[in-house]
Amino acid sequence: MAHIAVPEGVPGIRSLVMFRPESGQHLYALAQTLLRGESPLSPAVRELIAAFVSSGNECGFCRDSHAAAARYLFKDKKEVVDFVLDEYHHAPISEKLKALLNIAGKVRKNGKEVSPEDVARARAEGADDREIHDTVLIAATFSMFNRYVDGLASFTPTDPKAYEEMGVRLGEKGYALPKPQ
Amino acid sequence: MAHIAVPEGVPGIRSLVMFRPESGQHLYALAQTLLRGESPLSPAVRELIAAFVSSGNECGFCRDSHAAAARYLFKDKKEVVDFVLDEYHHAPISEKLKALLNIAGKVRKNGKEVSPEDVARARAEGADDREIHDTVLIAATFSMFNRYVDGLASFTPTDPKAYEEMGVRLGEKGYALPKPQ
Repeated sequence: MAHIAVPEGVPGIRSLVMFRPESGQHLYALAQTLLRGESPLSPAVRELIAAFVSSGNECGFCRDSHAAAARYLFKDKKEVVDFVLDEYHHAPISEKLKALLNIAGKVRKNGKEVSPEDVARARAEGADDREIHDTVLIAATFSMFNRYVDGLASFTPTDPKAYEEMGVRLGEKGYALPKPQ
Repeated sequence: MAHIAVPEGVPGIRSLVMFRPESGQHLYALAQTLLRGESPLSPAVRELIAAFVSSGNECGFCRDSHAAAARYLFKDKKEVVDFVLDEYHHAPISEKLKALLNIAGKVRKNGKEVSPEDVARARAEGADDREIHDTVLIAATFSMFNRYVDGLASFTPTDPKAYEEMGVRLGEKGYALPKPQ
């Protein structure tokens, strides 16, 4: 049960933003801009970074919902998501994406862990300022969402089918603020 | 020097949102709602929670700027800020605020660390759902800002006077998106 009186049976962050839409509207607008707005990184890659960071933070709701969205968006390459969540160093992804995931993993722990060498490695693989910026901000933002969801113990569905449906919805419609109950 | 080409000499998060105002507008709107919008917690207390979390995350820019804003807002009780940043258990603050800082400190590490007992302790001291919610979301949000600022190695002034001026500006004007250069 959640630590505060949020709408029952509504999973994860949706229940929290229904409790407090004044802050929730900015959280959803941020997610929509970061994960669907203009960026040199595809929405699929951005959802993958979100799932990767949430996995490291052991936030099951965020990991499984964004992994499902990433699978939906990667289409016939969706197996890449499980490779990355299992062990990204050997995943069938570009060296540039590995260098960006290395940065995201360090931001997740503490921003100070990102070294000039980490950034130079990403640049050497072809990453530009915008890709580095967006990677850092997505990793930082999911370090927030993970803490919000788990810090209030919001409802985490256990049925894999629930996440598959979320993945389709997030993949097709993105992030729109749910109406308060 | 910052890891990416942000405006030179502009401190902390301001330089990052000038680089990328599309996401920055939502970050500033979130900060304004969370720290100045309607809440049972005063703006001074909310700035104090922000400084406390940033101190734990060792983000010097966020700690010193929000500590300065808290001092400005606490007025003739401003010494409370240094007590809390030093060792909040013995600070001259209410037991309710100590229980909320305990929750904020756990959210900072990982949301899962917040136990039903932590929440029950806050309730026993008079905290309601909104106070618990706002504490968790402020702690989660600053876990994001800290990582954004440090993950991109944005400029951190060392002159204490710079933070004092920021504290006055944040205390009087709140959070308004700086214009892109």
